Amino acid sequence: MSEAMQTLEGWYALNDFRAIDWAAWRNLSQQERNRAEDELYDLLAKYQRTEDEKQGSTAFYSIVGQKADFMFMHLRETLEELNELETVFNKSLFGQVSIPTYSYVSIVELGSYMAKPGEDPMQDPEIVARLKPTLPKAKHVCFYPMNKRREGNDNWYMLSVEERRAFMRNHGMIGRNYAGKIKQIITGSMGLDDWEWGVTLFADDALQFKKIVHEMRFDETSARFGEFGDFYVGNLLDREKMQAMLKL
Amino acid sequence: MSEAMQTLEGWYALNDFRAIDWAAWRNLSQQERNRAEDELYDLLAKYQRTEDEKQGSTAFYSIVGQKADFMFMHLRETLEELNELETVFNKSLFGQVSIPTYSYVSIVELGSYMAKPGEDPMQDPEIVARLKPTLPKAKHVCFYPMNKRREGNDNWYMLSVEERRAFMRNHGMIGRNYAGKIKQIITGSMGLDDWEWGVTLFADDALQFKKIVHEMRFDETSARFGEFGDFYVGNLLDREKMQAMLKL
Amino acid sequence: MSEAMQTLEGWYALNDFRAIDWAAWRNLSQQERNRAEDELYDLLAKYQRTEDEKQGSTAFYSIVGQKADFMFMHLRETLEELNELETVFNKSLFGQVSIPTYSYVSIVELGSYMAKPGEDPMQDPEIVARLKPTLPKAKHVCFYPMNKRREGNDNWYMLSVEERRAFMRNHGMIGRNYAGKIKQIITGSMGLDDWEWGVTLFADDALQFKKIVHEMRFDETSARFGEFGDFYVGNLLDREKMQAMLKL
Amino acid sequence: MSEAMQTLEGWYALNDFRAIDWAAWRNLSQQERNRAEDELYDLLAKYQRTEDEKQGSTAFYSIVGQKADFMFMHLRETLEELNELETVFNKSLFGQVSIPTYSYVSIVELGSYMAKPGEDPMQDPEIVARLKPTLPKAKHVCFYPMNKRREGNDNWYMLSVEERRAFMRNHGMIGRNYAGKIKQIITGSMGLDDWEWGVTLFADDALQFKKIVHEMRFDETSARFGEFGDFYVGNLLDREKMQAMLKL
Amino acid sequence: MSEAMQTLEGWYALNDFRAIDWAAWRNLSQQERNRAEDELYDLLAKYQRTEDEKQGSTAFYSIVGQKADFMFMHLRETLEELNELETVFNKSLFGQVSIPTYSYVSIVELGSYMAKPGEDPMQDPEIVARLKPTLPKAKHVCFYPMNKRREGNDNWYMLSVEERRAFMRNHGMIGRNYAGKIKQIITGSMGLDDWEWGVTLFADDALQFKKIVHEMRFDETSARFGEFGDFYVGNLLDREKMQAMLKL
Repeated sequence: MSEAMQTLEGWYALNDFRAIDWAAWRNLSQQERNRAEDELYDLLAKYQRTEDEKQGSTAFYSIVGQKADFMFMHLRETLEELNELETVFNKSLFGQVSIPTYSYVSIVELGSYMAKPGEDPMQDPEIVARLKPTLPKAKHVCFYPMNKRREGNDNWYMLSVEERRAFMRNHGMIGRNYAGKIKQIITGSMGLDDWEWGVTLFADDALQFKKIVHEMRFDETSARFGEFGDFYVGNLLDREKMQAMLKL
Repeated sequence: MSEAMQTLEGWYALNDFRAIDWAAWRNLSQQERNRAEDELYDLLAKYQRTEDEKQGSTAFYSIVGQKADFMFMHLRETLEELNELETVFNKSLFGQVSIPTYSYVSIVELGSYMAKPGEDPMQDPEIVARLKPTLPKAKHVCFYPMNKRREGNDNWYMLSVEERRAFMRNHGMIGRNYAGKIKQIITGSMGLDDWEWGVTLFADDALQFKKIVHEMRFDETSARFGEFGDFYVGNLLDREKMQAMLKL
Repeated sequence: MSEAMQTLEGWYALNDFRAIDWAAWRNLSQQERNRAEDELYDLLAKYQRTEDEKQGSTAFYSIVGQKADFMFMHLRETLEELNELETVFNKSLFGQVSIPTYSYVSIVELGSYMAKPGEDPMQDPEIVARLKPTLPKAKHVCFYPMNKRREGNDNWYMLSVEERRAFMRNHGMIGRNYAGKIKQIITGSMGLDDWEWGVTLFADDALQFKKIVHEMRFDETSARFGEFGDFYVGNLLDREKMQAMLKL
Repeated sequence: MSEAMQTLEGWYALNDFRAIDWAAWRNLSQQERNRAEDELYDLLAKYQRTEDEKQGSTAFYSIVGQKADFMFMHLRETLEELNELETVFNKSLFGQVSIPTYSYVSIVELGSYMAKPGEDPMQDPEIVARLKPTLPKAKHVCFYPMNKRREGNDNWYMLSVEERRAFMRNHGMIGRNYAGKIKQIITGSMGLDDWEWGVTLFADDALQFKKIVHEMRFDETSARFGEFGDFYVGNLLDREKMQAMLKL
Repeated sequence: MSEAMQTLEGWYALNDFRAIDWAAWRNLSQQERNRAEDELYDLLAKYQRTEDEKQGSTAFYSIVGQKADFMFMHLRETLEELNELETVFNKSLFGQVSIPTYSYVSIVELGSYMAKPGEDPMQDPEIVARLKPTLPKAKHVCFYPMNKRREGNDNWYMLSVEERRAFMRNHGMIGRNYAGKIKQIITGSMGLDDWEWGVTLFADDALQFKKIVHEMRFDETSARFGEFGDFYVGNLLDREKMQAMLKL
């Protein structure tokens, strides 16, 4: 048996992608559209209050291309809170004119290869801040789920802990080159959703998403062991941008 | 030919996942919604009576994310009873506003590596209780289907019975570390549905789902031989919680 | 070139799976529902007459889980007859409230490894009865399509005829242990549908489906070479059971 | 670099599969249904005139099973003509009650291993007739797309030209055994659609489709290198048969 | 770690595929159809002005077969502009009668193996013209996404930079044979969409798409390392051709 490394977990995460049913939106009366927008902006304000109170965090982005029109990424303490957020949105008038297209359930995770021996990592404010983060308001977002491969000679989970540690060290060094350009939230999803991890990247320059994924692809950790799901990329939304998007 | 191990089987299982058609729900009159809820709660009460009479068991959970809004897991003595449960639900008014999203047909299974020689396991009340269990009312559920891999050198079914027994012993030892934290129902589905097994986990702390799947992933049984389908995770539902979810 | 074994073929087969559109069913008036049921039962009676006249055979089963609500398995002399059965059903009122979910086109097949040298197998009434069978009225049905694998060292079609014959002999011996418990109809579908064979099993005890698939999985023929599609399992239907299912 | 063999190309091909929306068909008035059929038969007559004028060819077949209700296979000189055929059909009243289910874009192709050295094959009337053929009116059709495999040791495109030539010679010899029973149209689709080739077979006895695919499966060309998409099988249609199919 | 080659990036690209909802189109009044077309042609004129002002470029093509009816390929400086183009189209009346079928987000890319040492490539007008190109108005288009394979011994990203450079040189030499026949736009999509690159080819003779893909398939770069998504092929559209297509 290969040794599993300890991980630390923080807030649960729901990446929630939806398309706008433009025909349904058009079919609403102007009055109904106003009401639908008001309900939506009330929700946005409520998410902001939760973030201000450090009880969670929510990011709101458009998605480029036909995979979705917008994405919420919600971080909350419990799965019940995430479920409640979904239900409230689904019951709202704006929820009625949006179409669920993809979602991902996971939990903010730190690999313990960064833990210092003899210390309780949950007493380290820096670690707690990374486990229960306030999501950045960067101009762009990129989300994708991923696995570590388990095929023939390329089976990550059959490597020794030393081998995995060495691979991850090199991998992490690439990531460090993007400090200040990209902020990444790694969320673990074994037992929670269909892939092993979700990766959510935030950057003011979307080209950095391409550069980091390209550079890492040549690193053995990704080249031999990385399996990637669909990629979603988008632009920061707020009330003003959403109003512009929804205005007929 | 590799030797097949004997298994014991109990109740048939149907994991039945459905989404709520919120637009249809909204379009019903308040009176119709009341009637739809009454029909639903009558069904819940009927499931409870069956469980009280030890004729089966039903678990009722919400699902987090867009894969479904709720899941029933029904255990019954026959496939005909499971079919009847589906039909009655489909014909109910609440059934009309819900959308089938996924289902899994299987049968509660115990591997015989736990059977004592010279004893009829069906005379052992502990074994019968595991084959015809009352499903836990834990706060969270996790369901996923799985196969044992049959690829090149990683072909579970070409291993000797001794090799498989040794793998499963190690695998089981990990499981035992989660006693008291996770209750698992293994259901066999060869010849019944698309994967070889269904796994339904129950826990009061959803993080334990991630921890056990993560730890087992490094065990050779999973690392080399485990193939996993989609994961569904959710929160316990009852009449009160369902009323809150459905209230517009 | 590896040598292909001769096969014998009988009636063409159509396994036709459909779901009931319960909302549409509910929306019909009671009078329309009566008419739809009358049309359906007329079709069932017509299928029975064809079977009585030994011009074909039809099995009618419910399906457990969300993959379908019912399945017809039709055996007929020609593809034109199967096509006509579909069209008549599609044009019927009951056809209007059912939703096609899956179908499989194939032809009853016997592998010639059972043919006696120097004899015309089509003169053997037992063989003809197996090629143009009357489908059993067992309590349960199980259908799945399958391929023989062609991957790297596990390439069935690169084996010598002697190797294949030996594998199939062992494989057949397992099957013989289920005589009296399971009746199987093997239909070939190369050139007719997406997999190489369809397998339809009939049994009064559905647990036997699990037992035979499980036991065969450890046989090298399945372990190394078997690739399986989706599994459908269901319960015998007749007019009375269908009336109960459709009654609102 | 492995050497690519020269190919000859003729007419572009569109295999266009559609289902009938029976509910929509039923919902038309008898007068509208008459008009829809008249438009359809006018199109059929127009396709026939194009064929009579040797400007293209069209085959019209029903499809057995739920994958489609009918298929047009159109051969024309240009992609623009194929596009125009689609648009005209889509805008017709009958087009409004049919549902696109699958299509395949390709071009009639001859491998040059049949070209005689020193001759311009396009001056050979037999070759031109094969590149711009009139499609047979056989009783049955079979369509499937295929690739040559590129995996590990089974990589067709890494073979030498001599190896490929030898494989294809054996492969072709099987095909020759079916002369008079099966007429095949091979269409190349690299750069045009998702697979490398489309294969359309025509036969008066549908069993021959099974026999040739079965026999070829044991040939190393298919056993090691053949990858196959979905198979569609059907029966010849004409105005009379279509009238019968559409009559309520 | 294998060394990543530097790339140069230009405009972001959105390949946007849509089908026409012909039933919805027919259901509009003639007046509404006129208005929908006017809105569409205003958008086309606006795209042309952006192209005239060198602020981007747009190609407009029909698609042959059922995958889509038309495709826009938009090149713009930012992801926000691409998002805005989508939203404006979705909100237009013509957008209401079209159905999104596929999209691809990427960015124009040049591999740096063409950069001259000691020079800033962005000062080279030829390179800038290739990074921010005006899309050709060729008669035909072909789009497909692709990956470099990472499987066992065929792992592109585990090759040395010299090996990759040699492979790409041979690969490029094939491409050069098609100069004047095919114009290709390579767009990188790591971190932006589901594949690693998008390839958009333009040609006046669609047969050249087949010829180049066929010839390259035998090149080791494609044979061992090329993984291809779906192929879309189509014909140039403009206002006049669109009017003809939409006329009932």
